[in-house]
Amino acid sequence: MQVTCQQGELHRALAHVSRAVARKSTLPVLSNVLLSAQEGQLRLAATNLEIAIAASLPARVAEAGQLTVRADLLTEFISSLPSDEVTLRIEPGSLTLAVSCSYSKANIKGIPAEDFPTLPEIGEQTPTARIESGLLREMIGQVAFAAATDDSRPVLAGVLVEFQGSTLTMAAADGFRLSVRSAELDEPVAEDLSIIVPARALQELARSMADAEGTIDLLVTPTRSQLLARSGPVEFLSRLIDGHFPEFRQIIPKTYNTRVVVSREAFLAAARRAKIFAQSNNEVVRLQLLPGDSELDPGAVIVSAQAAEAGDNEDLLSARVEGPKAQIAFNGRYLSDVLSVMKSAEVALEMTSPNAAGVFRPVGDTTFTHVIMPMVIGNI
Amino acid sequence: MQVTCQQGELHRALAHVSRAVARKSTLPVLSNVLLSAQEGQLRLAATNLEIAIAASLPARVAEAGQLTVRADLLTEFISSLPSDEVTLRIEPGSLTLAVSCSYSKANIKGIPAEDFPTLPEIGEQTPTARIESGLLREMIGQVAFAAATDDSRPVLAGVLVEFQGSTLTMAAADGFRLSVRSAELDEPVAEDLSIIVPARALQELARSMADAEGTIDLLVTPTRSQLLARSGPVEFLSRLIDGHFPEFRQIIPKTYNTRVVVSREAFLAAARRAKIFAQSNNEVVRLQLLPGDSELDPGAVIVSAQAAEAGDNEDLLSARVEGPKAQIAFNGRYLSDVLSVMKSAEVALEMTSPNAAGVFRPVGDTTFTHVIMPMVIGNI
Repeated sequence: MQVTCQQGELHRALAHVSRAVARKSTLPVLSNVLLSAQEGQLRLAATNLEIAIAASLPARVAEAGQLTVRADLLTEFISSLPSDEVTLRIEPGSLTLAVSCSYSKANIKGIPAEDFPTLPEIGEQTPTARIESGLLREMIGQVAFAAATDDSRPVLAGVLVEFQGSTLTMAAADGFRLSVRSAELDEPVAEDLSIIVPARALQELARSMADAEGTIDLLVTPTRSQLLARSGPVEFLSRLIDGHFPEFRQIIPKTYNTRVVVSREAFLAAARRAKIFAQSNNEVVRLQLLPGDSELDPGAVIVSAQAAEAGDNEDLLSARVEGPKAQIAFNGRYLSDVLSVMKSAEVALEMTSPNAAGVFRPVGDTTFTHVIMPMVIGNI
Repeated sequence: MQVTCQQGELHRALAHVSRAVARKSTLPVLSNVLLSAQEGQLRLAATNLEIAIAASLPARVAEAGQLTVRADLLTEFISSLPSDEVTLRIEPGSLTLAVSCSYSKANIKGIPAEDFPTLPEIGEQTPTARIESGLLREMIGQVAFAAATDDSRPVLAGVLVEFQGSTLTMAAADGFRLSVRSAELDEPVAEDLSIIVPARALQELARSMADAEGTIDLLVTPTRSQLLARSGPVEFLSRLIDGHFPEFRQIIPKTYNTRVVVSREAFLAAARRAKIFAQSNNEVVRLQLLPGDSELDPGAVIVSAQAAEAGDNEDLLSARVEGPKAQIAFNGRYLSDVLSVMKSAEVALEMTSPNAAGVFRPVGDTTFTHVIMPMVIGNI
């Protein structure tokens, strides 16, 4: 192999694929990045067997070839080089990558490319769907955090991704909260399908395409075992989770007794403040919804927390309250989590009783719904 | 106590003193910040018994008073508040601090001020010396990193600070390297004196005065047990280390056989690159000093590292080499440490043999000297 490329482009591609490198693995080749030079491009790939990321960059290929080398070593060395041309060379029959750039050179010992797992590519296949990259990142950001972080029920560590006609819906639930976001695709899918993608993998997908512009191609492999995503020169691959996702639409309460509309920013600031004190008290943050008594006084929400040892706090937010006076308590982290991923200026909270789930919706937008189970406390 | 101040100023002062709060202490009051309101100002103080930091801010004091409250809780709460007036109140006889700002309020439980350690203040005392704040930070940055990080020989975990006439000298050594920096004071000290300040405390001093402008007053307490530093509203206190600092001037080699002058930036980049490979080989970075054979070819330095399992690298730097060809090896971290704290465009390395200490000096500046013991390796 002999290939020449730009230091900056090589460094950027390495930064992309490095996110998929196995941190701790008993299989040394998973700590490596696969370099493949062919037809005017250098392709890099890494995988931890959960996800894989590949990135290509333009290169002058004098001789095709492949090798895997330690991702950390190559990335550190390439990032230390000046912005100049970098030449990568492997002598025929050798397992050492010779790197040279300006007055610097290095030899990095490798493992044969044949030992690296085979990764599927989108190639010329027709994608399952195509979606604007900013929208995909937003959907992931609004849903994936609500998935379970342990694997006691594997499906709950995943995000349900449902393609139905021209609607894409994502849903995640961890047993205490449910987050659902839908969006319209530019074109309907050829066939409806639902998959469960590990939440961590989806978050990694959003990060690895953080600066992607334009559209992202999504492809579910014919065996429904993997999801591929492609944006320009970067390809992302995730395994899927087998199983049956809960019927999430049945979990969303259909009615409410009290509904409050409040500034999202003020509510978020109050929730974060209450979290400071709630820390020492099981994260319990209390809400009191107080209807007003006139047009001029539409009502208020009191957000408070109390910890026996530390102290207590209370925020008074002006709000529009419909229905009777009510109280409810939530985990402060869940409260600040949902308020921080919402985009609208105002947020509505709908509730039936202190013991029943509360529903959070952005005002003037029906594409997002978030449900949180209350914390049931003595005399709230 | 009842006092009103600006949220931004209170938050800034809390950020200052928080650096001195004990992370883990069996004495709960050391996790607290002391609030003292008197005569138009609010004074905050914290200590971990190694160092103490105090900061004052202007305040409208309706009623003087004192209390200590958990520093983390107060800091988090104050930082969460909007930029507005904050009122702090303690009901007579109570141990609870009531904080209110805009539509937010909190009650934070405290510990009596009497339980907080008494801290000396500079007050009206004549400072031992006065130094420009940027210069003090630079000196600490160039010296303190070379102190020992363990306490096996307590004096080596400190920095010798020597006031002699109008010269201030700082020196630190960890048994493998020595860093010395001197500077001229605007005015000579009344009496020569030397103290040993814990290196971590000096680094904390530099950080706590990171945005200080103008001069800093330094005061060694009459018992020579503490160093006080004051910059505007911030006061810093450190305990001193008892003991005898090594005669560092005797450690600096007086002669050399080979001397090389090289671009500091290129040398640093090469040292950092070599460190990548040296990691797997006891941090050994080799230098080959190669004299040139003409005015047009003044010479070169080759910086290289080699790790049996990982690979090797080599950088070729053009340099002016005086004296015979030579080789020497250093710990790569020590090499990049010293090169990154130096300020000059060019650096000189003077050496006698592969087994003797190398001396690093900024070209055109005699105020800084750094000595590193070589790593003695088989056939270098």
